[in-house]
Parts: sequence; C-alpha cells; structure tokens
Amino acid sequence: MRDVRVSLVGFGVVGHGVVDVLSRKKKLLRDMGLNLKLVSVTDHTGTVLAEDGVDAEKILGERTLANVASSGMKGKEAISAIDSDLMIEVTPTNIVHGQPGLGHMEAALSGGKHVVTSNKGPLVVSYGKLKKLAEDNGVMLKFEATVGGTMPLISLVERTLVGNTINGIRGIFNGTCNYILTRMAEEGIPYTHALSEAQDLGIAEADPSYDVEGVDTAGKVVILANSLFGMDVKYSDVDVTGITGVTPEALALAKKRGYAIKLIGDVPALTVRPMLVPLGSPIAVSGTLNSAAIYTDLSGTITVTGLGAGSIETASAILTDIISIYRTKLIDAIF
Amino acid sequence: MRDVRVSLVGFGVVGHGVVDVLSRKKKLLRDMGLNLKLVSVTDHTGTVLAEDGVDAEKILGERTLANVASSGMKGKEAISAIDSDLMIEVTPTNIVHGQPGLGHMEAALSGGKHVVTSNKGPLVVSYGKLKKLAEDNGVMLKFEATVGGTMPLISLVERTLVGNTINGIRGIFNGTCNYILTRMAEEGIPYTHALSEAQDLGIAEADPSYDVEGVDTAGKVVILANSLFGMDVKYSDVDVTGITGVTPEALALAKKRGYAIKLIGDVPALTVRPMLVPLGSPIAVSGTLNSAAIYTDLSGTITVTGLGAGSIETASAILTDIISIYRTKLIDAIF
Repeated sequence: MRDVRVSLVGFGVVGHGVVDVLSRKKKLLRDMGLNLKLVSVTDHTGTVLAEDGVDAEKILGERTLANVASSGMKGKEAISAIDSDLMIEVTPTNIVHGQPGLGHMEAALSGGKHVVTSNKGPLVVSYGKLKKLAEDNGVMLKFEATVGGTMPLISLVERTLVGNTINGIRGIFNGTCNYILTRMAEEGIPYTHALSEAQDLGIAEADPSYDVEGVDTAGKVVILANSLFGMDVKYSDVDVTGITGVTPEALALAKKRGYAIKLIGDVPALTVRPMLVPLGSPIAVSGTLNSAAIYTDLSGTITVTGLGAGSIETASAILTDIISIYRTKLIDAIF
Repeated sequence: MRDVRVSLVGFGVVGHGVVDVLSRKKKLLRDMGLNLKLVSVTDHTGTVLAEDGVDAEKILGERTLANVASSGMKGKEAISAIDSDLMIEVTPTNIVHGQPGLGHMEAALSGGKHVVTSNKGPLVVSYGKLKKLAEDNGVMLKFEATVGGTMPLISLVERTLVGNTINGIRGIFNGTCNYILTRMAEEGIPYTHALSEAQDLGIAEADPSYDVEGVDTAGKVVILANSLFGMDVKYSDVDVTGITGVTPEALALAKKRGYAIKLIGDVPALTVRPMLVPLGSPIAVSGTLNSAAIYTDLSGTITVTGLGAGSIETASAILTDIISIYRTKLIDAIF
C-alpha cells in the first residue's frame, strides 16, 4: 500500500467536488494500492490541516473555509509549508496572467510535489515553463480536467491512441456556447434570448463574454497545441471568433442543408470559429455536451463526447489523473 | 531497450494489416523503448520464420504464405515450437466453438506468451478459462480489437475511466447493420435493397447472417460483460434480435418523431435489438461507424465513436494493446 499525501488548493465548486469524490472513492483507491490522504484544504480564507485526512462531511457544508480553518496560511505560503506528495489546484482561472494558480503550481512543482489541476490559466500562460519545472523536479503535471470536462481527451490521445500519429483535433470545447447554439437552432430564437435562458439556468455567467467570445475555447486550443502537438503557442496565436454574430436565420439555412453551426476549436490550425458541421456527424452533439474528433494516421477518426462541466464530473477527471500518476510513474522511469 | 519477440498467427485481411503497421511503427516503438521483432508469421499453409524480423515488403504482396513459407509448421505446433514473447492471434473467428483461435491462445498462454487478438470467438466461448490461464502463467491477454474495431472502448473503461464505477454500456457494435439501417432511413428503401448495396460495396458478406441476425453484436456483448463487468455469461444468455425485420416504414415513422432505429447491444442487460435512439444523441451515428455510450457514476455519460472495422484500423488496436502490455506489466506487479 502506497501512502499519498494530498493538498487541495481552491475550495469553490470544483474544490467541493474534489473533497466529495476523494472521500467517496477511498475504498476503490485502496483496492488499487493507494492510500490517499487529503492532509490539507486551502482557500482564500485559510487552511484546514488534518494529518489523518480532512473530515469531508464537516467541510462540505461550508461555502468557504472561514469557519473551519485551523490555520491562517494561504496560497504559496501554505503550499510550501505543508508536507504533501501531490497538490490539486482548482482556484479560479485567469488566462491573461494565470494567477494565482500559476504561482501555486510553481511553488508545488519546485517543492517536488505532483500537480493535478482543472485550472486552464496557468497552462495557457506558461505551459512550457511548468512542464520543464515538473521535469526538473522529477514530478508530474496533469491537467485532463482543463479541456472538455469529463471528456477524457488528453489521456485518450496520450495513452489509448499511443501507437497513432495525431494529425489534428477538432471539437466543441465549450458547453455554454453549445447550449446557446442548440437552443437557437431548435427554437429559431435570437442569440440574446437563448443567452438569457442559459443565464437563468446557470449555464451562462452574468458576464458571458469569456464563453461566448470564444476565449475559453481558445485557451483549450492553446493547451492542446502545446501538450499534445509539441507546439509552443500563446493565446494571441489563436484566431478567435465567438458566437455572438450567429443568427437564427443562418442556423435555419444550415439546418435546411443538413448542417449545424457549432463553435469549433481546431488544433493545429489554431482557430476558434462558428463552423458548419454535418448533422449526424459524431461531433455535432447538442445541449451542453462537448465533443472532440481526433484525426489519426491508423485508427481513422475517433470521436469522444461528454459533459463539458460539473463539479463531480471535473473532480472525476482529477481523480483519473491522480491514479494515472501513480500507475505510470514507475514504468515511465524504466522505458 | 527491451527486445520483444512477436509471432503472428493468421494472415488474412487483419494479419496483413498487422504486418504493415508493425513495420511502419518500428521507429515509434523504438522511441518508446520497445524493440519489436516479428520473428514468425503463420497461416494455414505454413510459417515464415525470420530471426531478424520478417521482411514486410516481401510478404505483404502475397495473399497466403504458400509461396514464401520457410517451414511447414502450422497452428499449435508452430506456436509451441517458436520462441516468442507475444502472440498476435488473427485467424478467422468462430463463436460456436472458438477454433482454431482457442487452441492457439491456450498453447501460447500455457507457453508463457502474452496474447493480443482481434478474434472474438475464443473470448466468447471461453473468456474465464483464458483469463485464468493468462494469470496462472503470468502473462496478459488483450483484446481491444474484438469490440468496436478502432473505437478504444475497453482501454477507455479500464484505464481512462478507472476512477469510475461503470453502470452500463450501450452502443452500436456492428458497422454492417448500421450501414444498412442508415441507408434504409436515408433512401426509404427496403432491407433487401440496402443489403444488396452493402454486399456490392463489400460492407456485407455474401452470407450476411452473422452480422444482420445480431450474432456478431451479441458476441461483443458477451466479451464486454465478462471482461468489464465481471460477469460470467455465454452467448446463449444474450437475448438477440437482428435487423431483418426492420421496415422502411418503421424507420420513417421513427425519423418523423425525432428518432433513429439502431441495432443496440446493452451490457449488463444482455440484449441485442433494434431500438429507438434520439436523433442528435451521441450514439446515433451513421454509416459504418460504431459507437458506445458508457454510463458512469462520476463522469456522467461518455460516448466514443470510431470506424468499426478495417485492416489497418484493427491492426492499430492490436498495436495499442501491445504497447499497453509493456507499459503496464511492471506497475501491475507493484500495485
């Protein structure tokens, strides 16, 4: 049985999901030979420390750690002070400067801790540097949850399709945009109506620009380009058009001709734009689903679809990354 | 660099694909630390032996090995006599008695060789026994290519979704049936016309019963049930209805109401039957594509689609299995 000491940094929607999932899956992890102990949870108010693992039930009822923190330590200070093998970073994302996640990841990797994250910003801003920092310190940086939520795209390419050369990936990487376009097409309603509906349902933010302008999708394109295609690109290298200019008339005309209009991210083309996708093609999924078509040299086109977001779903991708670190660390050292 | 001596048994369409793919991917495999040498190829006419690896170009032009065989050894005799680490078994399938593949696999596993196969029959007939034989001899039995062709279903469940509990899998596992149903729906033509078209295109066999009666799909349901759900079921445990009774009228009515009719295999329900699937749902793919919806406890529903068959595509799934054996063998021993 291998003991793994885990620190969680960030206690928003995803952080709650992580605490829940790690607690629920304790037995399954032990059956795999992993004794995972969540020894700390940190948010902007402080840190809960627990040598024997945090009491999930006790903290899941709290919106922040303000009432339960056993220490005032925050951020990098907490990361450096706490003895752990692995940090899960799930603070709010910022894809312009990557903070505070970037600083957190640098502190953890420099300190010889593996990092697992759903936080896009630091990877968009600084993938190459973080990757090198991980290598220099003999630890791993895993980020399946940053692209496509539960859709297991990165591990599918890196592990399952490992014998293939990947020629390109094209897909729907933002559930909010997909929901809006789906509703516009179904009901013939204009963009503003579909957006209001999505906001009422909690699918779109009050300020929806991050999603609808294509920013989120472009961030994912950058992460895929740098991690799976060995490119070295920045956000500004992506040619981005959002969905605000799509009209119900365009959608109706497309439908009549057998097409849907979807916001498609394309790697290595480095484009994000509304595109015609044949109805019935595997990536033309509806609602908040995400999808990705992976073009390979041997296996033809493999498509994967899944929920784009969700607290437990994102935590599930984080769990898979954790397991994968401890399952692959040893062989990678040998081959 | 790890040397791996590989024997190939079976030199039909898939066997040719295997020789081609192993030759094309020699460099990629070496980059991974695997020096794969195809030391023998055996078919019903004899065996090509080559200590330094068979000359792919020389044998790919031959339909059988009759003109190039360097030994008259066949079947189990060849498997036992040839010194190899891993056997690829791709002889024609028989899901009633599993032969000759079953005997081949037993000989290889008993002799301490890993087995990688696209041959459904032996697994449908005797999965439990083969699995035990592999365990007893400290080797692995891998069969991604038996279900869904290039669609990486088994490794996706076993590796990528490893933190999840899988509640069920439902999908389209036969490209021939999917092609026929797709054409009937598109053109409003009866079953017999669509079948003739599929036969003309080489998508359906002269005797199509194995596909259209649901036999092939049911075999895959048995393999998934036994390997991924820990069940112990036989072909006769599956409730099977094929597509020969589906009418263009039923397809048209379904379409009008927003549905497609697809031949769906369901595990653990152990059913194969034509079912209504909402148009636009991720498993409702067209043409010869296969698809599988994987219902999980944490990640929601993940769907994967890919080409159901093809020489190179099937060989690609075999290649992935080979890589996975050498990447996981060591860690599995530790955890």
